[in-house]
Amino acid sequence: MLYPNKIEKTGYKTVNYSNRGMNLENLINETNEYYVEKDIALIYKKPTPIGISEAVYTEHGRIIKNGYFKAPSTLDYNGIYKGKYIEFEAKETQKKTSFPLANFHEHQLKYMKKVINHGGICFVIIKMNNQIFLIKGEDLIKFIDENTRKSIPYEYLKEKGFVIKESYNPALDYLKIVDEVYLERM
Amino acid sequence: MLYPNKIEKTGYKTVNYSNRGMNLENLINETNEYYVEKDIALIYKKPTPIGISEAVYTEHGRIIKNGYFKAPSTLDYNGIYKGKYIEFEAKETQKKTSFPLANFHEHQLKYMKKVINHGGICFVIIKMNNQIFLIKGEDLIKFIDENTRKSIPYEYLKEKGFVIKESYNPALDYLKIVDEVYLERM
Repeated sequence: MLYPNKIEKTGYKTVNYSNRGMNLENLINETNEYYVEKDIALIYKKPTPIGISEAVYTEHGRIIKNGYFKAPSTLDYNGIYKGKYIEFEAKETQKKTSFPLANFHEHQLKYMKKVINHGGICFVIIKMNNQIFLIKGEDLIKFIDENTRKSIPYEYLKEKGFVIKESYNPALDYLKIVDEVYLERM
Repeated sequence: MLYPNKIEKTGYKTVNYSNRGMNLENLINETNEYYVEKDIALIYKKPTPIGISEAVYTEHGRIIKNGYFKAPSTLDYNGIYKGKYIEFEAKETQKKTSFPLANFHEHQLKYMKKVINHGGICFVIIKMNNQIFLIKGEDLIKFIDENTRKSIPYEYLKEKGFVIKESYNPALDYLKIVDEVYLERM
């Protein structure tokens, strides 16, 4: 079985210039579009929940004149892949030595446990130091339960995370890692 | 096995006054909250996708000053139940004799097929003539493929649909019908 983080350690590296400058969210959105187009999976980013304090009716329909962003209580992406429910969150940080847990809302962490208990595949994708890692929800929860610190050391990501390589099409083939981490071990 | 629509035909009826006046969306949202609270399922209404043409930054964060509603390309509700991916749409009509298919967007109907092909449980909940029916996505697609008409006759809903009863808590226990229609027959 392949452990992508181990491949990384051997020094093998794919550099692809086409995605340069694309942020993590765009990489994932493009990848999800590719998956839908190729009928590989149906995974979408949930729209940001909006509160509306003022709306008007116009000839073009209802228009929001005053709206605000609500804090999400679930994770950003969900969908179905090979008959399995998948839900995940993606975050990037400019920090070099550790990933601040404040990037997740308290209720999002509780929610991850629930998704796992209901039999879903749940993980986070973290971009840090120009590397992109998939961290299993189980590992993230264990880390939080066993530690009092407010951030995840980069060393931990390298040890427990699975590196997702950027490439051309799809831009970020995270389902390949999902196959290896979740489905081939079943 | 119980066929709730057959129970209906025998004349058995539960009348519950507490939900009177609650529209279908509210009934489902309250039911989903109940399911989450009791840890039965994790099913949420997706936020309506919003396009933002003008936003300002204030001391309270980013505020939308001009926003519009986008047409959804997936269905309104999705989540996980007993390890299964579930996605559905809910619609009500004031019409008495048939349900207009224009209530669904063209791409939503195509999307239903995809969810089913990927192994998800996919259905619509239709409220009409004060009755609430669950119609399997498979049946809806078959109806559309085999008919040129632009609406589903009420008789068809009564024949192919499964009646979901309103009750007290949860307000609309549609997962009971999902059990009977999808899970107990597996």
